[in-house]
Amino acid sequence: MKSEKEVTEFISNGYKTHFRNLSLDCAIFGYSDHQLKILLAKWKELNGYSLPGGFIKRTEPLSMAASRILKERTALDNVFLQQFHTFGDSEFRREGHKKYFNLPKDNWLKERTLSIGYYALVEYSRATVTEDILTEEYVWQDIRKIPTLLFDHNEMIEKALHHMRINLYHQPIGYNLLEKKFTLPEIQSLYETILDKKLDRRKFPKKLMSLGLIKDTNEVRSIGQHRSPKLYTFDKKKYEQCLKEGIVLAF
Amino acid sequence: MKSEKEVTEFISNGYKTHFRNLSLDCAIFGYSDHQLKILLAKWKELNGYSLPGGFIKRTEPLSMAASRILKERTALDNVFLQQFHTFGDSEFRREGHKKYFNLPKDNWLKERTLSIGYYALVEYSRATVTEDILTEEYVWQDIRKIPTLLFDHNEMIEKALHHMRINLYHQPIGYNLLEKKFTLPEIQSLYETILDKKLDRRKFPKKLMSLGLIKDTNEVRSIGQHRSPKLYTFDKKKYEQCLKEGIVLAF
Repeated sequence: MKSEKEVTEFISNGYKTHFRNLSLDCAIFGYSDHQLKILLAKWKELNGYSLPGGFIKRTEPLSMAASRILKERTALDNVFLQQFHTFGDSEFRREGHKKYFNLPKDNWLKERTLSIGYYALVEYSRATVTEDILTEEYVWQDIRKIPTLLFDHNEMIEKALHHMRINLYHQPIGYNLLEKKFTLPEIQSLYETILDKKLDRRKFPKKLMSLGLIKDTNEVRSIGQHRSPKLYTFDKKKYEQCLKEGIVLAF
Repeated sequence: MKSEKEVTEFISNGYKTHFRNLSLDCAIFGYSDHQLKILLAKWKELNGYSLPGGFIKRTEPLSMAASRILKERTALDNVFLQQFHTFGDSEFRREGHKKYFNLPKDNWLKERTLSIGYYALVEYSRATVTEDILTEEYVWQDIRKIPTLLFDHNEMIEKALHHMRINLYHQPIGYNLLEKKFTLPEIQSLYETILDKKLDRRKFPKKLMSLGLIKDTNEVRSIGQHRSPKLYTFDKKKYEQCLKEGIVLAF
């Protein structure tokens, strides 16, 4: 949405081109240097934060709607989004946006709205985020310090985290989150940060090596007179294969 | 739906009480004695099979809609359903039911309809299934021999199987699928059948024992002069705890 006029038109007649009673929200997790954050939008009108979200066009494939909405709201592009859950149980999902927006009584946006949740994991220091007309600002919020959000978005984040963590055992991650060459402590910290638990220092790299996901580059990084840890890299071919076929990790 | 009159009324005006453009389908997997099947409905009108499904009431929580739809269509009760994916990408999910039903041009059921998928796993020899007015019969079909189904339901089953298999590594199963006391080959066969792969005969029971999920009953079953395998049972308290907190299995 680019202009105020377009927003006004959408509020009145958006249901003609978009599904009614159904929205889409994106939980964008950002990893960088031992920290896991989530992208939150501060609404101009509502004095609160939420996940970026929007409505699905009646003619577009669902997964394209997810990418489009994220791009329109945040300017984040080429983010691989994964669907995780459709929300329709909580009180908010039964009552709708009634108490949030000052809209005419029979406006379509006041009706009960289910929402399809997608998540993604990006390297947040490399991501550019831009506000749209509805949002005052975007913030990368530490997931350990999430405030009370608008709508049912605290529940959404909890569920998205759960699904992302489970997925970590079945699909490799790290390719766009670490430097091309990384140390074992760096990749271990990535997994530990997302899982929010310590992993065995011996079994963890052993498992990644035995799957063929990472390999020794025969190079070291000099980080001090007596510290020069070995550098590893992903085996791209094996990584792609594991992404496609799925893996079972247990460290 | 109980009468022809009610069905006719639903076809004309169902959108007033149910969400438009959104349906719900259930992939009910049935396990019994080394076999994994899926419940398919044969439609009276369409000369083909599909998963049981229906529409969500505008006033009911989403998960209650899932149980209600399954019960109304099949008489299956108290089935724990797990949501796995919302479908909206395939050609069918963009084109809608146009070519399937002989309905008036502007009927609401001809519009594009996304669908929320739920799955469950039951012991099919203990389940009673009853036809409703739209279905000629229900069959438990071996998942290795699934015919070409109506709509996008082959894709749905594939995705449901994928999610159920992943979930097997993170939540214990078996409580309602095996006898109260079972042998190690019996529980291993349950896992192998669902995963469609062989598991290590030494590591698999060792893992279940080390998690505390199963315990030795100190009884044996006599199945022949020289064959009397030990009987095991679930530790119910531990089982519930693992269900709640999640586990990470790897055999």
